[in-house]
Amino acid sequence: EIATAAERLLRPPVPKPLAGKRVLITAGPTHEPIDPVRYIANRSSGKQGFAIAAAAQAAGAEVILVSGPVDLGDPPGVTVRHVESARQMLEQVQAALPADIAIFAAAVADWRVANEGEQKLKKTSAGMPPLQLVENPDILATISKLPEKRPPLVIGFAAETEHLIDNAKSKLARKGCDWIVANDVSPATGVMGGDRNTVHLISKNAAKNGEITVDSWPVMTKEQVAIELVAHVAKSVTGKSLESAS
Amino acid sequence: EIATAAERLLRPPVPKPLAGKRVLITAGPTHEPIDPVRYIANRSSGKQGFAIAAAAQAAGAEVILVSGPVDLGDPPGVTVRHVESARQMLEQVQAALPADIAIFAAAVADWRVANEGEQKLKKTSAGMPPLQLVENPDILATISKLPEKRPPLVIGFAAETEHLIDNAKSKLARKGCDWIVANDVSPATGVMGGDRNTVHLISKNAAKNGEITVDSWPVMTKEQVAIELVAHVAKSVTGKSLESAS
Repeated sequence: EIATAAERLLRPPVPKPLAGKRVLITAGPTHEPIDPVRYIANRSSGKQGFAIAAAAQAAGAEVILVSGPVDLGDPPGVTVRHVESARQMLEQVQAALPADIAIFAAAVADWRVANEGEQKLKKTSAGMPPLQLVENPDILATISKLPEKRPPLVIGFAAETEHLIDNAKSKLARKGCDWIVANDVSPATGVMGGDRNTVHLISKNAAKNGEITVDSWPVMTKEQVAIELVAHVAKSVTGKSLESAS
Repeated sequence: EIATAAERLLRPPVPKPLAGKRVLITAGPTHEPIDPVRYIANRSSGKQGFAIAAAAQAAGAEVILVSGPVDLGDPPGVTVRHVESARQMLEQVQAALPADIAIFAAAVADWRVANEGEQKLKKTSAGMPPLQLVENPDILATISKLPEKRPPLVIGFAAETEHLIDNAKSKLARKGCDWIVANDVSPATGVMGGDRNTVHLISKNAAKNGEITVDSWPVMTKEQVAIELVAHVAKSVTGKSLESAS
């Protein structure tokens, strides 16, 4: 006990390579209303985004977390904005700018229902009317392409069930972000809702004429993925390395 | 302390008016898959159905609870079957028959998506294809109209946002059940996901030529609604009253 305490006192202070940096993070699913009682959802638990928020806070950053509906407690020391729909998430993201780093880990619904019912929709004898869908605002592309206030480092996530790397590379180009964290969310992987993740970090290297590099990480817990990602972010924006957490 | 213990010993045993009866209960929402990561959900928390299961168990019944995805622990002494979709719920309900009483408190999705995607659906330049919906099996009507194995008392729930009593009466007639517990789930009421409920018990009186009676209860906790409902059930199927829980 005493030896441990002495060791702790002698240990150098925890490095805070993101001190003074403002990091904006999104997490969780969005819920898109069909009528007052029904909605379209997705299986994102928010665990990966919450872990990144905690890791960025531990690295000294000021963290704003915009979260969809999740069953997780707010991470200590993090400012959390709770939202339901993609439109609300975009509003809160815009309100949180400027930021030095934006990490969009939320699984935002691509679509919402065109005519949200004010009353509960009823079955009719004519059968079910198809649900007309309209495209939601694209938060990653919107922020990546901002003429002003674009965060210097914008990171998107690509959750795919097939052609993971190809889809993620094409997403990087299409959205205009700097990095993509790609992961396979096929049901067999247990990633959606689970505690582990296998990710590939796909980045555009401005110094090397926009060359795309793919860095495939081994399977890790979502906390480990968060610490690694924050270490890469710290190195990129400050040039300082985060000491590897043991 | 000693006085309380003595009082407890002297108190008559808790009445078990449903001893020897088998009660089948459904609870919670159903999730209807769109593709491996997206689904259609509803705001039911499962609290009312779980409270009824606990009250029926306390009244001495053998209870089988078929539950959609909820964030609630299994009630002690109750056999719980966990399902996701309406089709899975119907399967488990059918497998649980015969029963003396069936109480269908789940908020079952009326529809599911016609062509569930095996891979995550992608945005296309052509825009969003509408989601084609097909009708789900109607668990309440299916069980109410069983030629054999129909439970002697079948109770449905009607969650409405307008024309509550009229919609519930018409549901009673259409589905062929014996009672309907109707409640207003407009967002302003806070019933969906909340702890309180204001219900109307609508029953068809076989002895009185099928006369429909509407019994409107005051606002109560979901636990109180459960205890009252189980008391009515006990009186109906056994002729015995449940002593009112204070």
